Formats: sequence, structure tokens, C-alpha cells
Amino acid sequence: MSDTFFHPISGFELPRFAGVPTFMRLPHVAPDHARFGEVEIGLIGVPWDSGTTNRPGPRHGPRQLRDASTMMRAQHAVSGMRPFEAARCADLGDVGPNPADIQDSMARITAYYDKVIEAGILPLTAGGDHLTSLPVLRSVAKKSPVGMIHFDSHTDLFHSYFGGMMYTHGTPFRRAVEEGLLDPKRVVQIGIRGTMYDEEDRDFAKAEGIRLILIEEFHARGVEDVMAEAREIAGDGPTYVSYDIDFVDPTFAPGTGTPEVGGPNSYQALQVCRALEGVNIVGADMVEVSPPFDMSGGTAFLGMSVMYEILCVMAGQVAARSK
Amino acid sequence: MSDTFFHPISGFELPRFAGVPTFMRLPHVAPDHARFGEVEIGLIGVPWDSGTTNRPGPRHGPRQLRDASTMMRAQHAVSGMRPFEAARCADLGDVGPNPADIQDSMARITAYYDKVIEAGILPLTAGGDHLTSLPVLRSVAKKSPVGMIHFDSHTDLFHSYFGGMMYTHGTPFRRAVEEGLLDPKRVVQIGIRGTMYDEEDRDFAKAEGIRLILIEEFHARGVEDVMAEAREIAGDGPTYVSYDIDFVDPTFAPGTGTPEVGGPNSYQALQVCRALEGVNIVGADMVEVSPPFDMSGGTAFLGMSVMYEILCVMAGQVAARSK
Amino acid sequence: MSDTFFHPISGFELPRFAGVPTFMRLPHVAPDHARFGEVEIGLIGVPWDSGTTNRPGPRHGPRQLRDASTMMRAQHAVSGMRPFEAARCADLGDVGPNPADIQDSMARITAYYDKVIEAGILPLTAGGDHLTSLPVLRSVAKKSPVGMIHFDSHTDLFHSYFGGMMYTHGTPFRRAVEEGLLDPKRVVQIGIRGTMYDEEDRDFAKAEGIRLILIEEFHARGVEDVMAEAREIAGDGPTYVSYDIDFVDPTFAPGTGTPEVGGPNSYQALQVCRALEGVNIVGADMVEVSPPFDMSGGTAFLGMSVMYEILCVMAGQVAARSK
Amino acid sequence: MSDTFFHPISGFELPRFAGVPTFMRLPHVAPDHARFGEVEIGLIGVPWDSGTTNRPGPRHGPRQLRDASTMMRAQHAVSGMRPFEAARCADLGDVGPNPADIQDSMARITAYYDKVIEAGILPLTAGGDHLTSLPVLRSVAKKSPVGMIHFDSHTDLFHSYFGGMMYTHGTPFRRAVEEGLLDPKRVVQIGIRGTMYDEEDRDFAKAEGIRLILIEEFHARGVEDVMAEAREIAGDGPTYVSYDIDFVDPTFAPGTGTPEVGGPNSYQALQVCRALEGVNIVGADMVEVSPPFDMSGGTAFLGMSVMYEILCVMAGQVAARSK
Amino acid sequence: MSDTFFHPISGFELPRFAGVPTFMRLPHVAPDHARFGEVEIGLIGVPWDSGTTNRPGPRHGPRQLRDASTMMRAQHAVSGMRPFEAARCADLGDVGPNPADIQDSMARITAYYDKVIEAGILPLTAGGDHLTSLPVLRSVAKKSPVGMIHFDSHTDLFHSYFGGMMYTHGTPFRRAVEEGLLDPKRVVQIGIRGTMYDEEDRDFAKAEGIRLILIEEFHARGVEDVMAEAREIAGDGPTYVSYDIDFVDPTFAPGTGTPEVGGPNSYQALQVCRALEGVNIVGADMVEVSPPFDMSGGTAFLGMSVMYEILCVMAGQVAARSK
Amino acid sequence: MSDTFFHPISGFELPRFAGVPTFMRLPHVAPDHARFGEVEIGLIGVPWDSGTTNRPGPRHGPRQLRDASTMMRAQHAVSGMRPFEAARCADLGDVGPNPADIQDSMARITAYYDKVIEAGILPLTAGGDHLTSLPVLRSVAKKSPVGMIHFDSHTDLFHSYFGGMMYTHGTPFRRAVEEGLLDPKRVVQIGIRGTMYDEEDRDFAKAEGIRLILIEEFHARGVEDVMAEAREIAGDGPTYVSYDIDFVDPTFAPGTGTPEVGGPNSYQALQVCRALEGVNIVGADMVEVSPPFDMSGGTAFLGMSVMYEILCVMAGQVAARSK
Repeated sequence: MSDTFFHPISGFELPRFAGVPTFMRLPHVAPDHARFGEVEIGLIGVPWDSGTTNRPGPRHGPRQLRDASTMMRAQHAVSGMRPFEAARCADLGDVGPNPADIQDSMARITAYYDKVIEAGILPLTAGGDHLTSLPVLRSVAKKSPVGMIHFDSHTDLFHSYFGGMMYTHGTPFRRAVEEGLLDPKRVVQIGIRGTMYDEEDRDFAKAEGIRLILIEEFHARGVEDVMAEAREIAGDGPTYVSYDIDFVDPTFAPGTGTPEVGGPNSYQALQVCRALEGVNIVGADMVEVSPPFDMSGGTAFLGMSVMYEILCVMAGQVAARSK
Repeated sequence: MSDTFFHPISGFELPRFAGVPTFMRLPHVAPDHARFGEVEIGLIGVPWDSGTTNRPGPRHGPRQLRDASTMMRAQHAVSGMRPFEAARCADLGDVGPNPADIQDSMARITAYYDKVIEAGILPLTAGGDHLTSLPVLRSVAKKSPVGMIHFDSHTDLFHSYFGGMMYTHGTPFRRAVEEGLLDPKRVVQIGIRGTMYDEEDRDFAKAEGIRLILIEEFHARGVEDVMAEAREIAGDGPTYVSYDIDFVDPTFAPGTGTPEVGGPNSYQALQVCRALEGVNIVGADMVEVSPPFDMSGGTAFLGMSVMYEILCVMAGQVAARSK
Repeated sequence: MSDTFFHPISGFELPRFAGVPTFMRLPHVAPDHARFGEVEIGLIGVPWDSGTTNRPGPRHGPRQLRDASTMMRAQHAVSGMRPFEAARCADLGDVGPNPADIQDSMARITAYYDKVIEAGILPLTAGGDHLTSLPVLRSVAKKSPVGMIHFDSHTDLFHSYFGGMMYTHGTPFRRAVEEGLLDPKRVVQIGIRGTMYDEEDRDFAKAEGIRLILIEEFHARGVEDVMAEAREIAGDGPTYVSYDIDFVDPTFAPGTGTPEVGGPNSYQALQVCRALEGVNIVGADMVEVSPPFDMSGGTAFLGMSVMYEILCVMAGQVAARSK
Repeated sequence: MSDTFFHPISGFELPRFAGVPTFMRLPHVAPDHARFGEVEIGLIGVPWDSGTTNRPGPRHGPRQLRDASTMMRAQHAVSGMRPFEAARCADLGDVGPNPADIQDSMARITAYYDKVIEAGILPLTAGGDHLTSLPVLRSVAKKSPVGMIHFDSHTDLFHSYFGGMMYTHGTPFRRAVEEGLLDPKRVVQIGIRGTMYDEEDRDFAKAEGIRLILIEEFHARGVEDVMAEAREIAGDGPTYVSYDIDFVDPTFAPGTGTPEVGGPNSYQALQVCRALEGVNIVGADMVEVSPPFDMSGGTAFLGMSVMYEILCVMAGQVAARSK
Repeated sequence: MSDTFFHPISGFELPRFAGVPTFMRLPHVAPDHARFGEVEIGLIGVPWDSGTTNRPGPRHGPRQLRDASTMMRAQHAVSGMRPFEAARCADLGDVGPNPADIQDSMARITAYYDKVIEAGILPLTAGGDHLTSLPVLRSVAKKSPVGMIHFDSHTDLFHSYFGGMMYTHGTPFRRAVEEGLLDPKRVVQIGIRGTMYDEEDRDFAKAEGIRLILIEEFHARGVEDVMAEAREIAGDGPTYVSYDIDFVDPTFAPGTGTPEVGGPNSYQALQVCRALEGVNIVGADMVEVSPPFDMSGGTAFLGMSVMYEILCVMAGQVAARSK
Repeated sequence: MSDTFFHPISGFELPRFAGVPTFMRLPHVAPDHARFGEVEIGLIGVPWDSGTTNRPGPRHGPRQLRDASTMMRAQHAVSGMRPFEAARCADLGDVGPNPADIQDSMARITAYYDKVIEAGILPLTAGGDHLTSLPVLRSVAKKSPVGMIHFDSHTDLFHSYFGGMMYTHGTPFRRAVEEGLLDPKRVVQIGIRGTMYDEEDRDFAKAEGIRLILIEEFHARGVEDVMAEAREIAGDGPTYVSYDIDFVDPTFAPGTGTPEVGGPNSYQALQVCRALEGVNIVGADMVEVSPPFDMSGGTAFLGMSVMYEILCVMAGQVAARSK
């Protein structure tokens, strides 16, 4: 299905520590590249954290994720999926933000993703803080609202910060609902926890019909049961997957700006992805990986392992469609 | 119930990385402060590790815990408790030890806590090594012995170290029983594990009727069942809660001097606190957080999250009483 | 001259690792404090890095500087100056920025410093990135332009970034000259080095008469000679001292966002401050200390040692005036 | 059974941070030592990583493991086993590899272990990368093939790397089967996971009758059930235990060269060892601890805790035999 | 002279933390790229450390150097050189070594450099350990011996290690002299220091006429004087520049395998490069940068700053020739 | 002069990362060892920091120094001295302190050194905090007072701490003068700097005739001139050398408890030792290396390099005497 150009370099040919580090050692295919039109799944970096209100850092995420990604191999251990054979994958490079202007940055990101979506490429994004999801959704959900399976310790449904700041990493999905990008009835947020300012975000969720699965419920019911409900909520319609690394317990993922104690472990972090099988994924992101708070890179390695899991599900869908 | 003076500064008003770091951004109310008498729950630092026999460091604990504490917000995610509204809380500052004299340090600590107890303030202490609990108990249990729910990987019930050293972080509760501060029948120790010198401590526990719940039993029975028994042991009487951070597995809490592999994870670390609901808490401590062995601060963040959990339970009791 | 209230707690009374960490263990005297009007030198934190274009982090600077400052003692080793006896010093707290709005943040900072300046307090600021100096200068130089002795590896004289971003940490002194806050003829920049985009900043300096002392000249001539010229340039008029920690070689000060190899060592970092004796200092700052890039805190310790040096010079001036 | 010479120094006599660090503070008994012949269990370091294909480092493992081992005490917390009384244990020192020659290194290692085996000493090895197991097995299984219980995230059953490299840390057990050192029907590999190049190793396992227990099966069935099967596979015959630290989840054991997300936690890491009770252990190893990727030493501490668990099982067997 | 294709992306257009990290943000031009023939200076990675006898790690050097290189800008601060305009520069990618076979790796490297040399490209190499220089010299000095200016704390002139290991990072220049690649009379080694095994290497140097400048002489005479002699020794003939990062003091460059205390500081590290002006450089390398021993990346940042200095000298030569 | 038993293992025979780490890979010769009486220079660890008033840690120093010491080779690069051939050197092991009792610890240390001195062994000590020097001097100067060349940023001449603590790492030499162990006229302290509590220590020095060379004088005069004076002060009489690692600038030696900015660099750190040639050294120590504040080990590596320098001078004296 996919030709050799789109295959990553094997660690058996070139040691994994060698080479310019693209995502998963895939070819770097920028939008002006001759073969851009052939790409089926595009890995894209959005090195941007202008929405961060406390500890910045995710602007450095894509580079560290690329570095960690050279450890990924050709085949999934459980499903047997060989994603790079199932679909033509490529590293589409980074979208350059304007660090000085949030609105301009969002406009640039949406413009970039418009090209991607128009080319029929499924985007798998490496953020960036969680505000990244908003300009991406403006492309992905341009035609009609999408559902969302959202892994996070926070709802990111707040109205505003600091007396009127409407675009932060705590507000993207409030905006997305307001802008008609998300169908709140088809949105589920999993792993919510941590001390709270107030219940304003939860009230909004309740009013709009967004389903919140708090970490207590997650731990009590287990991955399979929770994810079965998540798949049901998302249904058959186009669904976005947003994965904030702070969903995972901060001991497993210390490199993030707003950690909350008591989250899932690394195995559960992968399991929830495998349970996305059957969801109609139109795009996905891994956000809030913040290298300055984890110089050893373990967080990025986990983040990339999660991205590989999601990629395998997406590649399976691509392969199924092209049969 | 509580007025604005005792409210922490919100991160929505002043970013959390700003400001002189007091515990949970509460007002700093030293014993000579005009409003000391109004405080209901006092957070106190005891930067002291003279009882440490192997790897020192907990003297630096209170400062790092204060730093981490600026991440705490106004409301508990599960119980909905808003502790700073339920009770008047304050940072009472640090007790200054005499690094050169264990007995003098203990006298200073007890004298300080006497003032706190006399003012009717419930103390929530940030140690310090585990010897800290002894001079605190001398105040808290001045009138009559108290029960204790004790989370730890060690019993701290040894007779002495190095041929006669009676006051170390391995002996506080032996002394406390001998001094009549603890009612051994109402004491339970949870999470005990690690290689042993001998069984001298366990023999003492058995003789006195102290209940030990080894980590194997903890993992086998689960938090709820174990904590139900703990509440039963503590009963209705006044009970002290002592939480050694080495109760938690060292991967989750590396910043401590005597780690033991195989402990609870971070979620269980919080759960056991929530299960204190109903216990008659007359004081609590978080000890053995040792910043030099965890410069990234993850241990302090976990320690502070635990303190917030305990604080919520204590605040609920204060609120209940004042109704 | 100064009474006991304004004396830091001695490490001989209370160990240095104990206590809520204010700057140099001084009393925390916010603008609404009863004794605010008595302060002669105010240490102020500005935890803000919205002007940073590459690696953020200085928003965390003031807290780490406060932590390091507890190591400072009562007397300067060479001059014998006892700054806390020579002048009434206090920690005035932090100015709360608006992380979402650069203009609003600058307005808040200037408003705060207006209060400080009106009270006759000499401000010694702990930033924050270098854009911090601009809103501070708007207060300090409100009445008439000031001279400046500026230690840095960059000129921070650029016109704009990213196609029009006028307020970044690379532009504050361009703005300050344009706004008439700085008298360019009385400005000297010392330690300039590092690879360059172009010569736009240097052309501006030349046109305006700002004196640049590149690091090569600094190393060739030595501290004394260079600083004699600096004092001559500043003359007798009111002069601001701005100290970017990246002036120092990044091995000595790794915790900063835009390091440039080949700078002064730690001894020279102090020496240049001692050579400020005789300059009419109306305010000073230490900026660009970025904890996420130096978790061990060595950079903050050096930064605070530099602040202590400058404080001693300022205290001497205060003492001389009040004689 | 064992005399005082073979007892480790107690931390109650000499603080644990003191002394030249041998394994578990045991006497250093090199093969030319007068009491070598009396040793029953020998702890041996093999500081060697010439078989590593990606991130080297295990050559530094034995030293860090010795350092961590000074935290081990005299008695097992659950079984009550006092290994140093049950069997005469000693630190036999390190085998010196030839960093420049894999074949020569393997010859040196086998020659060293031949001396150990001939002296009737049970070897407990601290590697080194996983290729270490091959030259050790050449001694241990010299007379007849042995069974193996193998904890790892990889099978290490590959044919070769980089077009013909037959001796790497990914191939030792392929070679061991080919050389008749392992009886594949009595081999079980537990914890297998991670992305794959292909299925060549699994095909080999299937063809030879090696039982693979993937991590999914491990998590689903639990330690007890899995280990019951493992004991059954190993049966009564002589069995080698090989423990690659990357069996454990990389958050618990970051110091290793080929981490794979989603493994067992630290409690399970110990539990599997306790379940070795009853296996006829003729040798064991702990490999792939790589200090450069975990300077804090948590991985080595966990690795040493695992070695202590295995030692207790081995010591129990020795004691049983000598009754 | 150079067209836009060969210009690095400016940090004013795309923030420096964004993008796939090639050397200095130059285009990635592999040997099969259409514009390979136009390249004048090629930056090449050799991720290889099979010659390392103690602490491995330089195989990870090129990737960290690429990461650090995104901090480099368009113009040299002192000379005004704009290297990317003066010469067509590109990232030629990495040479893939065979981690299992030193001879095969050297053959691969030489074959790669043969292509580079044949294309008339000046190579600027990022190692790898110091053995890297040997296979590079086999290409660079294919036609006739070259001189060498060598910065290092070791001579790397040993005969062999471990009884016969001829190809290690301590022997490359012994081999290079023996193979006629270096003209020993035109070789100078600067910065030699550290404890010694014996004087075998120094005897060889003396016998062959290689000039050794020990660190004591370096510190006593200063950079200018020493480098004047170095230029004289090298003369007008083709000269190779080899820069081992352990030339620099280990405080400035901790990330290396064989540090020796007491070396040059970071300013001197740059100064010696500037003094290469006038040398006929036919190739240069930066070796022994070992990320596992400096996770913060300061060593790589210094190493890249040195490479930028050398690049500027090389670019000046290219520009001069093409006039 | 010295036989093979006392030679360290060469890194050419056994790689330096292998083996149980004794000081400089020398044999471990405890006082009860058969060849103890033959030792001429004994390296001794004193893992003790009970005298530390702020940040503890030096108790962990000897172990990290032993680890770093395996990097030392057979010959000094400048003097050509081969210390292990010039004198019979051995690792005498650690003195076990009593962490609970300062007086008992001092008694133990003195008792141990009495044995060493009586055996005619020159002690070279690895501390421990600076209080270590006092009990050592009680042995070394048992018969008559000695002179001292003391490298430090502090005088350690204070009377007491915290209202009466007489034995801290800030008081050893006050006690030593009072006890008649030091001849103050033959004592010189070099490198003094840092902020001060008061001038009490300096007044004592002045009254007793102890010469203080502040860091400003040191930098102004240079190593040679300062050390010439130091040698003159010490004269021909028996002289102790005490080297506090905080003499060196904290960037070069971060792993210490009381750093002071602006000290000597690493080259000067070695040079001052070489200038001890000709001093009649009767013992020496390296103190205050504190691993918890420098996990990477650079401080220990520098500390060990300094010890090697001093050892070479001592070995030369031994060799000269035995001629």
C-alpha cells in the first residue's frame, strides 16, 4: 500500500542514535514537497505555549518528542499492526508560531492545517500546550462539529483567566464548543482530577452535556469499561482525540506544566489508546509535554509511545478504507 | 465562617509562580501576630533532621513544600470541600531548631506547639525527619494519650541506635509509648516493609498491642478495607496522623532518606487520606521529605498534595464543630 | 540609622534553611504595610517573562532568588559594609503581572514602581526577563532621562522581532531611548558578544551615542579599566544599573534563556559591581535568571551574590546622604 | 551455619554511608583469597556492555549496584529469611572484560565462572548488558542444559544485528539454545513488550517451544498465576534466573538502555522473585542497569532490592541442602 | 556567492525552538541530493564511540550538537563574518557506523568522506569519539600527508590498549602517522595534561617531531603566543584541525568521557579558533561530546559555539578562494 | 622502593570502571591487615558531617571520592612523579563515626589516627566536613604544635554557633589553637571570602598572628607569589595541609554546603598544591565534598585531582627521606 519512500529507517540498518531526528525516522515532507499529496497520516509539530498560564515549556515539546521517537520500531507488539506499511506516514515539519501574538499564531496554525486537511491527510499533532487544539480543530471541524475523546486531568473548559484572557490552555474546549467545532453531546473527558478553583468548568460541561469521567471513576471501573462508554459517546461520527500528557500521573510524566497527583500509570496510558479501535478518528494530538521540567526525557518517551499507539489505530483505519 | 484575611491568594488574581511562598499562599501568622488567636488550623514547618542516621536532608523540607504548595487551589476535586472557607487556616512559620543539640531542639519544638495547642489551633506539620513527631506529641498529647494512624515503611519503634542513641528518626514512637503520649492499643502502622536489622521493633509492637499492617497485607486487601480497620483501631478518641513520605513507593517519592521499594502508588497515597474522614484528628504531620535527593521537587509536590488531603478532612471537622 | 525591624534574621539565631524565604531574610513590607514609608531600599520581584522569544523561565526567577538569598550574611567581606545597618531594607514582595497581556503587565509594573519611587525608596529588582527594565524605567526616569550601566551579552536595542513585535526582551532599551527614559550619551553596555542576526542594534547604538564594550575589549582591558570608563560615561547624573545574568559565562550561570559562550567568570561578575562605587544609582535590576534551565540553583546563588554587591553600594549611598 | 567472617557489617555498628562499598557490605573474597572455597553464594560484577547496540552504560552497573547495596539489611521483611546466616555469601569482585574484544571478554568471563562453579559456589551476577548471560551460561550449563525463568521486555532471541553481528544483547539466548546451554522447553520469558522490528524472534521461540508471556497476559493474570506457570515450566531441573531491569516499567527503572513503556511496577518487580521459591536455582543475574541514564541511582536501588529477593531464595535452598 | 537555498532559517522568521533540527538550521543535503555538488562546506555527524575505552557516550553527540546548533545566528560578533553567505554550507547528515565492527565502521566512514572530498566539499565533522578522526583523515589525506593543529588534553598517540587493541580513541594519531596521513613535523598538540600511565606517547611524539604544548605552557604563554607558534608549525600546507572537547576544562565541558581538570575556560576555547585565521584548513572536527554525562546540554552548546568559530574561518577561506 | 602489592591496578589491565572502588585502586589495608605496618602514606575516609550547621552531605564524600579516584593514573603530568612507586600507599578504609554523638565521634577518629601516626604512616584524609580536621590534628600534633596551610573561603575560626555550640565546621581551628595543636604564627589561610556575620573570627586571627590572604589579594598577586609567602610562613617545621573544597569557586565545585562565589578556578586549584613542594607535610585533608549537591560527581573528581596533587608532593618527601 505504502512505498519505500515513506518507510522509516530501520535501526538494524542505521543505529537509532544516528541521523537527523524526524518523527519516527519518517521522511520530512513539508507542504511544498513533491510527495506531500501522497501522505495519508501526517505527524506535525506545533512548538507553541503562549496559552500557558503557569509554567511554560511545551514550545520545546516537538523537538524532544522527535528525539524520543527514534526508539519506535516497525510493528505493534499486541495488534501486530505495521503502521508504516498500512499507511503512508510522514513528518510534515513544524508550524511556526508567532511567539508575540496569540491570534496570529492561531491563524498560522489553522492555515497550515487547512492545507493538510485539504490534502486528505489525517493529522497527528505533537504540541505545544493545550491551546494548540483550538486552531487545529478550526481546520479539522471546518465543515461540521466533531466529537472528542479527551484524556486530561483538567477539563480545559474555563471561560477565561486573569480577568478576561479568553485564549489560554485552560479554555480551548470552551471556545471550541462556542464556535461550533465540538458537538458537546459527543465529547467525553477522562481522568479529571486535582484541586479546583471553582466549579465553573464543570457547570458548563453539565449544561452542554459533556461527559466528565473523574479519576476516581476511572480507577474504580477500569480502562475497558470506561473506554467502552467513551466509544459509545463518540459514536460513529468524526471524532478528535486529544491527549494531554498530564492525564498520566506526574511520576510517569513529570515533564509538564500543571501536574496533578494520582493519575493513571504508564500501562493504562497505553491501554486507553488501544481501546480507541473502532472510533472514527479525524485527527489527534499529544500536548503539554514540557522538556524543561524533565530533562531526562522520560516524559517525551512516554508521550511518543502514546503517539505510536494512536498512530497504529489511525493507520488501521486508513488501511481499512483503502481496501 | 472564615474571613478574607485567611484566604489564600487565587492563581486567577496573582499567577501561582509569584509572591513570597507561604504554605498554600496563606497569610503568615507568627505566634506574635495580632490574629494568631483566630487561627483554627495552623500549618507549621519544622526544618530539622538531627534524628537522621543515614542520609540527611529533611531540614530542607519545609521550604520546598512551601514552594510546591503554591500549586494548591481552593477546592477538593472529589469531596467539594473548600478548606480555606471551612476553617481559618494560616502559615504559622517555622520552628527554629538548634542544629547542635537534639534535646534543646525538642524543647523548643514542644514549647512552640504548646502555644499552638493552647490557642486551640489544630497543627498540621511539615517536617523534618520523623523524630519531629515526638516533641509535637509531647504538646498534642500533654493531657492524655492519643491514638495514631501512622503511614510509613518503617515502624520507628526501635529502642536505640549505635549503642545507646535514644532519639533518632527510628525511635520516636517507642519513646512516645514509653512516655505515655500514645495509647498503643489505638495505634496502627500501615505500609511496613523493607529489609530488617532484626525483629526488636515488631516484638515491641506485639507486646504493646500496636497493630502493624505490612505492605503485603495492604496490597492484598486494598485501601478501603485497610482504612476501615484503621478507623476502628483509632476509634472516637483523639488521634494523631503521622505520614512519612517513605510510605509511598520511592519512584513516586525519591526525595527521602530511607527509601524502601514496593510501596503504594500516588493514587493510593491520596486515597488513604480521604479515608481518614470520621477520625478525630488532633494533629497531623508530613515528614521525611528530603529535597537534596529530589531536586526536581516531585516528592514535595506529592507531599503537599497529601497535606492538602489531610487539611480538607481537618477543615471539615472544624466546620462541623462550629456549626 | 536602621532599626531592628529592618534587620534580617541571623543564621546564628535561626538556621538559614529555616523560615519563610523573603529576600535576604528581610521583613516582608508590602505597599500597604504600616512601615512602607520608612523603607530606603526595596527589593522587589517581577516574576514575568512575556518578553522572551526563545526559552521562557524567568517568571520563576524571583522565587529561586529568594531561596538563594537566605545564604547572604550581614557584612561585605571586602568593603566591610553592613548594608542592613546602613539603610532600611525590605522585601516589598512581587509585582503581579498579567501573563496574558504585555501592555497590561507593563502598566501594572509601572504603577507599582510609581508607589515605590514616590515613597523615596530605591528599587533593587529581581526579574523577570529583560523587558522588565522598561516599565521600571518608566517610573524611575519619569521626571528626566537617566544614564545606564548595562551588563549583558546582548544590546537589547533591537527594533522588533517576528515582524513587528515591539516589546520583547531584545528591545527594551530601544524603546527606553525612544521614550526619552534613557540619555543614550550616558549609557554604556558591557560584555556584548555572541553570534548576531545583523548589525541593526549596533547601528542604532552608534547613531545614538551609546557606548558598546564588546567582551573582547572587556577581557583585554580588565575590569578596573573598563569600569573606570563606565563611571565616566555615567557621570554624576542619576544612573540605572541593569544586570542581565547572561553577562556572565553560561558555565557560571547556565540558568538563563539566551546564553552566549565566553563571558566573564564569577569573580569578575562581582568585581564589576564593586566598581560601581561612586555612581549615582537610582535603581538596579538583576534579570533573566531562569530556574528551569538550572534546577540546582547555582545561577540564582550567583545572581543573588551580585544583588548583594549592588545593594552594598546602594546602602553606602543612602548612608552617605543621611549623614 | 555461616560464621562471622561472612556477615555484612551492620548499619548499627558502622553507618551505612561509610566503608569501601562491596556488595551488601560482604567481605571481598577474590578467587585467590584463602576462604574462597568456603563461599556458598558469590555476588559477582561483570562491568561490560560490548553487546549494546543503542545506548551503552551497563559497564558502570556493578559499581552503582554496590553503592546501592549498602542499604540492604540482615533480614527479609516477609519470609523472615536471614540470608547471610543461612548461607556463606561474599563479594567475589568483578570479572575484567576486554572492552576491545567481545570473544576474548566472553572467554574471560567463562573462565572466571568455571572457577566459581568448580568451587561449588552459586553465582549471583550483577551485569553488564544482557550478553553477559551467555558466557555465564557456558559455565553454569557446562554439563547439561538448564531451564530459565527470564524477566525482560525483550526476548533477546534475535539471530543477528546490523547484518551479521551474532553477539549482541539482543541475541544471547538464541546462541544459548543453539549451543545447547538452554533447554528451550524449560524456558519461560515474562514481560515481553514494546514495538518490534519483526517477528523473527517470536517465530524462533515458537519453533523451539519457548514460552512467551507478553505483558498484556502478565497484567491480566497477575503475578501469582503467571509465576505458578513459570515454576511448572522450569520444573525440578536446574534453572537459571535472568532478570533484565527493563522488565520493570521505565518510570521505576529509567537507568537502562532500551526502555519499553507499560511494564510492572516496583512491587510486582519484587513479587515475581518471591515466587521463585521452590525453583532449583543454579545461578541468577541482574542485567542492563545503566547508571548514565539515571544518575540519582533509583534504578540501581531497585535492581539491588531485586537481587536481595533472589538471594534470599537462593540462601534458603543452600540452607535446606546443608541440613 | 551562496544562494538562499543554503541559508539557515532565521530565528526572526521561525523561532529557534521550532523545526527539525539540522546543523545550524541548514538544509539537509545527503550525498544523493540534487544539490550535493554545490556544497562548499559540509557539516557531517559521525555518531560513533566504538573506540572508547572507559565511559561511552559520544555516539549520542551529533544529535545533541544539532539541537544546540539552532542557537547559532548569521554573523560572527567580532570578525563580522557571515559564514552562510560567504560559503554554501549544508548538513550532510550522519555517517552510519556499524556498532559491532570497528574496521567496517572505519571503512564506511572513509567511503563517505571520499564522496565528500571528491565533491570538493570541506568537511566539518561532529563526532563521535576521537577514533573518528582516523577514517576521516584517510580521506582528507588520501593524496598526501597533512599537518594538524590538535586541541586536546591527551595526545592520542598511544600504541595500543588492553594488550593489543590498536584502534581506540587513544591511538588515532599514532596510526595516522604510521599510515602517512599526518606529517608529524607539521603537527602540534595543545592543552596536554592529566595523570599519565607512562611516557610512551610522549616518547613517540619526541621521536617523530610532534610538538606538544602542555597546559602549563599554554596558561603561561597565553592564547596568542601559543597559536602563533601553532600557525608556524602548520605552515602553508594543508592542515587538519582536530578539537577534542576535553581540551576545555571539565567544568565548562562536563559531557565527555575522559575529563582532565585544569584546562582552558570557555573564552579561551573560542579564542584558539579565531587564531586559526590564515591556516590552510582542509577539514576539521569536534569530537568526544558525550551527552549522557551532561544532560543539560551545556557541553554541546560550547562544542557548537566552537564549531561555529571554525566554520567562520573556513568560510572566509572559501570566500577568498572564489574571489 | 614500593613493591607490587601497593601498586594500583592499571586501567590498561582492568578497565577503570571495573572493580571494588578503593582510593586510587590501591589495596585496602585496614589497621588489622598484615601489611599495615609497611604503609607509608595512608588514604583514609572520614564520612562524617555532624559539624555542619546549614546543608549536610559530606558524610557521603569518601564514597564518591573513591569512585572518582579510579580515574587517576600512575604518573604526574608535570613533575613526572610516580607516587605509587615513590611510596607505599594504601586505602586504610573509613573511620566509623557515631552519627549521634560528636564527642564520641571525635574520640573514635583520634583513636584511629593515633594508630596511623604510631605506625609512621602519613595520613591523607578524605572528609567529612571541616570539623574532621580537629580530631585528626589531635593525633598529628600530639607531641607538638604544627603549622598549617589552609585553603578555604572561610576561616573556620569562630568561637561558637547557636549560642554555645563549640564543635562545628566553623570552629575547628579556633579549638585547635586553644588546644595547642596549631602554632598560629605558622598558620596561613588562603582564599577567604563571602559575606560575613561579623569580624569575630578575623579579630581572633589578628590577635593570634594567623595570616589571612583574602581572595582579592590572591587574585591580585597570583598563585606563585601567594604560595611563596605561604611556604615562608609554614617554614621548615611540621605542617598540616587542610583543603576545603569550597576554596574553589562553586561553579567548579558545586557539591559543597557553604559555597561562596568568586573563588579560584580549577587550574589554580591544582597549582596551589604543586606549590607545596618543599613544605614539611605531616598530614593533609580534603574536606566538605558533599555529593547530594552535585550528583554528577564533578566536584568529587576535582577533589580527587587535588588529592592526587598533594599525594605526589607527599610521596616525593617520603622518597627523599628514604634515600
